[in-house]
Amino acid sequence: MIFKQLLEADSSTYTYLIGCEDTRQAILIDPVLDTVERDLQVLKDLGLTLMATLETHVHADHLTSAKRLKGRTGCKTAYPKMLGLPCQDIGVQEGEPFAVGSVSLHPLFTPGHTDHHHAYLIDTPIQKFVFTGDALLIEACGRTDFQSGSAGDLYNSIHNKLFSLPDETLVYPGHDYEHRFVSSIAQEKARNPRLGGGRTKEDFVALMDGLDLPYPRKIDFAVPGNEACGECPANIPEQFRGPCAASDQG
Amino acid sequence: MIFKQLLEADSSTYTYLIGCEDTRQAILIDPVLDTVERDLQVLKDLGLTLMATLETHVHADHLTSAKRLKGRTGCKTAYPKMLGLPCQDIGVQEGEPFAVGSVSLHPLFTPGHTDHHHAYLIDTPIQKFVFTGDALLIEACGRTDFQSGSAGDLYNSIHNKLFSLPDETLVYPGHDYEHRFVSSIAQEKARNPRLGGGRTKEDFVALMDGLDLPYPRKIDFAVPGNEACGECPANIPEQFRGPCAASDQG
Repeated sequence: MIFKQLLEADSSTYTYLIGCEDTRQAILIDPVLDTVERDLQVLKDLGLTLMATLETHVHADHLTSAKRLKGRTGCKTAYPKMLGLPCQDIGVQEGEPFAVGSVSLHPLFTPGHTDHHHAYLIDTPIQKFVFTGDALLIEACGRTDFQSGSAGDLYNSIHNKLFSLPDETLVYPGHDYEHRFVSSIAQEKARNPRLGGGRTKEDFVALMDGLDLPYPRKIDFAVPGNEACGECPANIPEQFRGPCAASDQG
Repeated sequence: MIFKQLLEADSSTYTYLIGCEDTRQAILIDPVLDTVERDLQVLKDLGLTLMATLETHVHADHLTSAKRLKGRTGCKTAYPKMLGLPCQDIGVQEGEPFAVGSVSLHPLFTPGHTDHHHAYLIDTPIQKFVFTGDALLIEACGRTDFQSGSAGDLYNSIHNKLFSLPDETLVYPGHDYEHRFVSSIAQEKARNPRLGGGRTKEDFVALMDGLDLPYPRKIDFAVPGNEACGECPANIPEQFRGPCAASDQG
């Protein structure tokens, strides 16, 4: 298995490159439009063929590069099957492993941040990796106040699907805003101030409902754009239009 | 590879179990006398034969269970070769991989916390793991004010031997006092307040020299005890004698 953790700094998003050493196939989990050239260069440097992009959910904080990468490389776009997006080539769902050469990703249905969110588990003989998207973050979690979010569902997803994984399982989140890169299930159980240390579901729901977070700066164009696999929508404000400029080259 | 991270709570020490899936051989890195029964049970539960104990250095904050485990299982005791301890069965040094079945540990000479400290790197096709002992800790480092410690040497060890590893390399420290379990080289480069973010050697040496830390509570018996592979010395105070009580059963 080949593994790279790549950061898009404007939205503090982690894109994960997962490749197979034997077949030289690779996927990108949650790739970002702003860093598409960087990601293509990393694939080239590693001698990998991009097989697919794979999303944990329809993002509200950045545009995916799924469509752009499909145009540039001929890869497929993969999304949670339940979304039924017209642009998606592959639908993934819990119980159906997604293969990248000899590497298997196991989708885990983890609603709460959105109603269709999936995490992805890779269970190797050496180590377990879970890509938690915007469900479980390091010492935090995704917000639950838009896109059919539900604090109760997120509590259940994290406790039943993620905290039930072995303690040593490595946690690779969809974002980190403080330069943390990796945690483990044991660490989040012990230290996560929202979800660890025996906090009850009622506590968690009250906490999340009381956060009073600012309106997401990109949501109005990011959600419709991402529902079209990262097409740049017409309503994108000028200051966010930069990464869209090259979209017709795709 | 089989991997377990085990905590000894009194000294906040991590013991690492590394095993080979094929041969069912295992080692314990930095095992602690207080948790010898727990560690033997974990080995039994996993169906593993303890081949050796392996120390990163002669500890000042706990007694190793090396001698006890040798008595109970017939395993070997492994230490940095340069120590030349009469009780050590195996000497390890940089440049000579230490094999546990099909798993190879690469000793990295990393003086500074002590003058003989070694970290151990496991480089698998899936992920790199570095067991950093008391050289690099998560957002911290080992102290340098006793046992021939040297802040300048520690700075060089961390920058030249550890920060030169690939960013994704997982950092598993010898201790954590705040329930953190794992970090990565990228994370420590970005966040370690003593060593990351471009701090100079002069800054680091001044910081370490000014820490004014309390005298280690176990050092007077732990160092001579550990130089005898964990034999309980006569000068051990009553309140720390508990784990020694069964030593004649070994």
